[in-house]
Amino acid sequence: MSYPDRVDVVEVGLRDGLQIEPEFVPTSVKVRLLNRLIDAGVRHFEATSFVSPRAVPQLRDAADVLEQAGGRPGVKLGALAPNRQGVERALASKADEVIVFLSATETHNQKNLNRPVEQSLRDIEEIAALLRGSPIGRKGAIAVAFGCPFEGDVDIGALKAIVGQFARLKFDSVTLGDTTGMATPPLVRKTVDALRAAFPDLRLALHFHNTRGIGLVNVMEGLRAGIATYESSLGGLGGCPFAPGATGNICTEDLVYLLDELGIDSGIALPALIEAAHDMQSVLGRTLPGQLMKAGPRLALHDPRAAAVAMG
Amino acid sequence: MSYPDRVDVVEVGLRDGLQIEPEFVPTSVKVRLLNRLIDAGVRHFEATSFVSPRAVPQLRDAADVLEQAGGRPGVKLGALAPNRQGVERALASKADEVIVFLSATETHNQKNLNRPVEQSLRDIEEIAALLRGSPIGRKGAIAVAFGCPFEGDVDIGALKAIVGQFARLKFDSVTLGDTTGMATPPLVRKTVDALRAAFPDLRLALHFHNTRGIGLVNVMEGLRAGIATYESSLGGLGGCPFAPGATGNICTEDLVYLLDELGIDSGIALPALIEAAHDMQSVLGRTLPGQLMKAGPRLALHDPRAAAVAMG
Repeated sequence: MSYPDRVDVVEVGLRDGLQIEPEFVPTSVKVRLLNRLIDAGVRHFEATSFVSPRAVPQLRDAADVLEQAGGRPGVKLGALAPNRQGVERALASKADEVIVFLSATETHNQKNLNRPVEQSLRDIEEIAALLRGSPIGRKGAIAVAFGCPFEGDVDIGALKAIVGQFARLKFDSVTLGDTTGMATPPLVRKTVDALRAAFPDLRLALHFHNTRGIGLVNVMEGLRAGIATYESSLGGLGGCPFAPGATGNICTEDLVYLLDELGIDSGIALPALIEAAHDMQSVLGRTLPGQLMKAGPRLALHDPRAAAVAMG
Repeated sequence: MSYPDRVDVVEVGLRDGLQIEPEFVPTSVKVRLLNRLIDAGVRHFEATSFVSPRAVPQLRDAADVLEQAGGRPGVKLGALAPNRQGVERALASKADEVIVFLSATETHNQKNLNRPVEQSLRDIEEIAALLRGSPIGRKGAIAVAFGCPFEGDVDIGALKAIVGQFARLKFDSVTLGDTTGMATPPLVRKTVDALRAAFPDLRLALHFHNTRGIGLVNVMEGLRAGIATYESSLGGLGGCPFAPGATGNICTEDLVYLLDELGIDSGIALPALIEAAHDMQSVLGRTLPGQLMKAGPRLALHDPRAAAVAMG
């Protein structure tokens, strides 16, 4: 039973979390949150998205966020780009990495990108040509990789075809996104094993949602399968449009706590991370789903003279 | 990597969950919830507690609950008893099982039972004598077995001494309670391995809280270690007096979902269980932490013509 010694925690809260927040979070606040996270030791972000400002007004300040938070040594700020225009905007920005995505199923890709998967695969080829020669990092991301809310189980052959396209076009890594929380431990193992057998040199990342309460259980299975990159969201910020009230992304602090307890180095200081989560919570003015920010690390002890007690 | 084929899920929501609810839940409602759970396939409960009605007025109807919900074939209704009087009341009731408990650390035992551990161990001896000859089941439970909010890490030798007392007195099983959510996978493995090496014939049960977000991760580790009994609470009802806003017990529906997905039989029908959780939520009039009750099982699909979509 061995885990990776070190894990790359990719913070996606500023993008995957904030994107559904109706109230605009000022650019300076986004930059402050990024800087706090960087100060806490986070080195890799999906920081914003070059989507249409009409579609996602929350992220209309993508270029400014990257301009103001960018340039800190050793830090990689990624930006999602849904199409060629988005990639062009990313290339013109301070983004260190561009994330190109599509969905594993036809119905979800049609809803999300308004085109067949086949067309998206051709778009990615065009995008790869556009990126050629640029020093910018490139990551592929596959939505609903562990199950689709419209189509159900995902065909592993379809997944292989998509991952294969990213691999052939020399993307640095591919993220398997569990967009609506349908991953399970056996499915994680089966999927990761199949993809690694087919693409042994490709770096895979896992992006789980906690929609059904087992996001960190799936991380454990990923760790056992040797995957060393996980995407998560500060405070567990995010949601699922199909499950009102359900949680969204797995929570960064809770993930880092788990990694710490497993003896896996993430380079992130938990107390500073918890403070950043409290900052995010204050900014949004409502309770976030993260647990560590409420309970603290396990050995933050209580004074028996003051504390209440639970029976049993 | 093999798991137990079958797992005993012990529902503790009516006791460990309800006990901190300030508003009295009528006996008839408690009985209805128990019956719904039994209808869903749950066969083992910590249904109530024979504590002082002054200390926990919510459970003052313990005997009535057992009287009215008891007697269904194959079902075991347990009652917690903090002391000799509690055990006497349990013996005079329709309880199928009495649960006797103490804490793994001096400070917690003092706060919870107002006596040293040594005295509690002698009390258990007296209680065992009282139970001799009765057909009632007997379970030992150890609070803060994976960490104490006052003392921190628990000495495995101290834990062994307590478990040893229950084993010597022929208790049917011993529950390791993670009262404030301090268990971690390495600690679960270390503790379970040590106790099984020392008491190979004793049945161990695990009672995790999700206070730090990794309750089900700890279940996975327990399953890998071969433990086949888990205690959980409908809807994730419960809380932690040391962590306002943090979740309490692991959630029964989320646990059963995980077991289903692992191919482990619990005998419980998830849809009926989710309905019972909604009933509990209506009774309490607030949102409970359970995720499955919000998101539904993973293959409950959505109509693409109606549904919103998440970007990425």
